[in-house]
Amino acid sequence: MAIEIERKFLVDEDLLPTADAKIAMVQAYLQADPERTVRVRLTDDSAFLTIKGKLVGFSRKEFEYPIPVEDARELLELAIYPPVEKVRHLIWVDGRKWEVDVFSGANLGLVLAELELPNENEQVDWPSWIKSEVTGQVKYHNSYLSQHPYRDWK
Amino acid sequence: MAIEIERKFLVDEDLLPTADAKIAMVQAYLQADPERTVRVRLTDDSAFLTIKGKLVGFSRKEFEYPIPVEDARELLELAIYPPVEKVRHLIWVDGRKWEVDVFSGANLGLVLAELELPNENEQVDWPSWIKSEVTGQVKYHNSYLSQHPYRDWK
Repeated sequence: MAIEIERKFLVDEDLLPTADAKIAMVQAYLQADPERTVRVRLTDDSAFLTIKGKLVGFSRKEFEYPIPVEDARELLELAIYPPVEKVRHLIWVDGRKWEVDVFSGANLGLVLAELELPNENEQVDWPSWIKSEVTGQVKYHNSYLSQHPYRDWK
Repeated sequence: MAIEIERKFLVDEDLLPTADAKIAMVQAYLQADPERTVRVRLTDDSAFLTIKGKLVGFSRKEFEYPIPVEDARELLELAIYPPVEKVRHLIWVDGRKWEVDVFSGANLGLVLAELELPNENEQVDWPSWIKSEVTGQVKYHNSYLSQHPYRDWK
């Protein structure tokens, strides 16, 4: 078990620098309520089953287990809602690894940046391509996006 | 991923023979809907995260992963409903391993036997301590018992 301390931001895609690496991923939820989520994530060559607890401040409990890719394909079919598709851009800025998720499919147009932090009080200078912080806003949780995709937002 | 083919029975506890082994277990659910369940099971010295699909006939998809015991303790706290407590009696009859669950706590009084089979058409002679078959009856699913414990049944 780990504690995930993470802040999340909307991104100005036009200002986004070239990624240091890109990872295409598909993920879906076996449980997506605010108290607990159970996620299956599949990339080209790896898969994980991840359970997260309730968000308190910037933090929540996270349990992550690698699983066979073939299992993940089957588990995606057991999901409650259609999978969320995105390409994760890894962008290093001042020694910090930003994960910028460029969504596609039903969430096309949405770009979110996440930054994991060692503690809740860590001070960070936001890069110029950050528009605004959305940490803790449930509608930007991937579990929410799977149920209420961005294209259906007013 | 495996396919679990299993039949389930009510047991006459007075006729039950001595177990070949007993395993105390606590289990709880992060998801307990009929289409998919996500279960955390903790015994004295092992723990598993298990996902099952929808029951079709006697069969359903099952994905099981060992997890650290310490994780399991934390995950039980994320469960939707209180944990189900039972002692599993392993009883060998004619080369078949019966798993007889003697429930305690909120399900005290309920005793269920399960038999895993290699295929749906396998013929089996039921032991004398079997009362009746309840395969497919949702109310005898552990996921249902966690939400509607036996002591609350009319």
